[in-house]
Amino acid sequence: MDPRIHDHAAVIVDHSTSIEAGDNVSITAPPAAEDLVVALYEKLGERGANPSVTMSSSRAMRAFMRASDPDDFELPAQSMAAVEAADVAIQIRASTNTHETGDVAPEKNAAYGAVMKPLGDEVMDKRWCGTQFPTDGNAQDAEMSTEAYEEFVYDAVLKDWDEQREHQERMVEILDPASEVHIVSGDTTDLRLSVDGMVTQNDYGENNLPGGEVFTAPVPDSVEGEVLFDKPVMAQGREVDGVSLRFEDGEAIEHSAEKNEAVLTSILDTDEGARRLGELGIGMNRDITEFTYNMLFDEKMGDTVHLAVGRAYEDTVGEDRERNESAMHQDMIVDMSENSRIEVDGEVVQRNGTFRFEDGFEK
Amino acid sequence: MDPRIHDHAAVIVDHSTSIEAGDNVSITAPPAAEDLVVALYEKLGERGANPSVTMSSSRAMRAFMRASDPDDFELPAQSMAAVEAADVAIQIRASTNTHETGDVAPEKNAAYGAVMKPLGDEVMDKRWCGTQFPTDGNAQDAEMSTEAYEEFVYDAVLKDWDEQREHQERMVEILDPASEVHIVSGDTTDLRLSVDGMVTQNDYGENNLPGGEVFTAPVPDSVEGEVLFDKPVMAQGREVDGVSLRFEDGEAIEHSAEKNEAVLTSILDTDEGARRLGELGIGMNRDITEFTYNMLFDEKMGDTVHLAVGRAYEDTVGEDRERNESAMHQDMIVDMSENSRIEVDGEVVQRNGTFRFEDGFEK
Repeated sequence: MDPRIHDHAAVIVDHSTSIEAGDNVSITAPPAAEDLVVALYEKLGERGANPSVTMSSSRAMRAFMRASDPDDFELPAQSMAAVEAADVAIQIRASTNTHETGDVAPEKNAAYGAVMKPLGDEVMDKRWCGTQFPTDGNAQDAEMSTEAYEEFVYDAVLKDWDEQREHQERMVEILDPASEVHIVSGDTTDLRLSVDGMVTQNDYGENNLPGGEVFTAPVPDSVEGEVLFDKPVMAQGREVDGVSLRFEDGEAIEHSAEKNEAVLTSILDTDEGARRLGELGIGMNRDITEFTYNMLFDEKMGDTVHLAVGRAYEDTVGEDRERNESAMHQDMIVDMSENSRIEVDGEVVQRNGTFRFEDGFEK
Repeated sequence: MDPRIHDHAAVIVDHSTSIEAGDNVSITAPPAAEDLVVALYEKLGERGANPSVTMSSSRAMRAFMRASDPDDFELPAQSMAAVEAADVAIQIRASTNTHETGDVAPEKNAAYGAVMKPLGDEVMDKRWCGTQFPTDGNAQDAEMSTEAYEEFVYDAVLKDWDEQREHQERMVEILDPASEVHIVSGDTTDLRLSVDGMVTQNDYGENNLPGGEVFTAPVPDSVEGEVLFDKPVMAQGREVDGVSLRFEDGEAIEHSAEKNEAVLTSILDTDEGARRLGELGIGMNRDITEFTYNMLFDEKMGDTVHLAVGRAYEDTVGEDRERNESAMHQDMIVDMSENSRIEVDGEVVQRNGTFRFEDGFEK
């Protein structure tokens, strides 16, 4: 087996989830990620933990959703019972075909997502980590050879996470006490939002591996202006391009997409909270140098900002603040590499992808 | 996908487990069986059931067992919680390498089996079905091409189970009210045991798919005599050949094997019940014409008898009878095709593989 798979397992077990003897560890993985499951089982055996694996199969999900009446969708009781009984959840992504659910009706996809939402909420109450195992399918999506993609993934994952934490802490110190954030990119994005009273988190490879962002929650009704997400979004097995949203009083009152607008509409129609922002994230992982059509990596890129429609992460919402609730959480990315800036409380903190505390920053 | 996989899924869902809307269905499958999982999800979607899949990976189990201190083995709480919350359990076997756990110490294999036993007990309190998906690994074990093996599996599985039930009922009518069973094969097997007060079950493709046997439990201390299991046994990733046991007062007081005797010893040493018989089974599936080193099929062959050391199935033990308890249940097969007979209460009911109620029986 590729020795980097063993190294990846070690980072998950020791850094991301801090496994101890006796921990009940629920892994979720598609068949294509069996190698990483094997490496994790070895490490978990050494630590005296108790693992099990749920198989996620996008082929099975597609067959199930197509055959089902969406009114019959119920959260399987055994899935919830398993997550409730676990101490740690490790979720591995690995696609053999990222378009596998592309011929399921968007409404069915969204209805299923809504039914399964409590499972995701329960996972987030545990120690948890979501990560990527490199496959042909994800390499193809990234427009890379499989070998180059493996290098890309392991470069992003196997790094000095303490150093990364310190790098990001400088942005946390700016954003956490701030009120107003102003994001400008070209003449298509000009968005103002408040993060007043919200909590900025430093993601250094615990819940997300790779990590590499700082993120917080906008005050739900504070978002005003327009944004063009110039990086494509993969959702429900489809590529949604050129998403544009206009916000008033925090709500996306206009939306359009150049490709697969119906998917975007179904995302925003999930529930009331799906039309409001639940996350503002700032990518800071300089080892992710290429856009690969995979949110786990793309949102961490150093010269991007991402916004998510839908639910806010609980740990980003201040005690006396409203949390945006939704079954949906869809991240979308704005390229900040050119002709763009982030202002925090009126001061420029990033221009054309370079942070104020990095070399080459032009005030 | 091979249309027989869809037919297989239909037999599991409609015949074996009688799925209804709202059923919570816990599937266990290795990665190699993903096709059957997909076909099951389609059928379960049509029925309005709620499926999930546990991935069984013999590669992961091997890595875990080798890395672990057996004193640390604990049943994962999330695995038990999931089975408890399910209405139906479907367990799919499919090996890419049947020797995968062959370099794990037999004592570790046995200790792990003992720790996981309550999970198997819980499954048997559900509606459940264990079945086989054909793989290269199982075909190789069977000494067949993969295509021939697929035919073998689907011939055995996709049959008229009502007709099979009626065929077997004739043997149930003989064995269920009986007391003494006497099994003779060549000059190596001469075994007497009592089934007095025990319950004979008709296996027609519900808990086992393929089905095709009638089985009951011996009275634990009634077993006397010698038996040579002339078909090999696959246990703990190893082939155990030429197993011979001598019973006195129900206990195996002597044992030997021509190959891998240490594995046999570790099986018998699991606990006290592992030295007593928990099952007498009589194979009656005439569509299984070849021995394939796979107990699910081999024990159903028409000219074989099998005995299991270890625990008795609850539904074969009469109300006022002792149930043989053990973490182990290891079936082993006696070839009854030549120079052999089964006597029930002094009357010959099978000679040289032919039952009394079949053409060609020589009294």
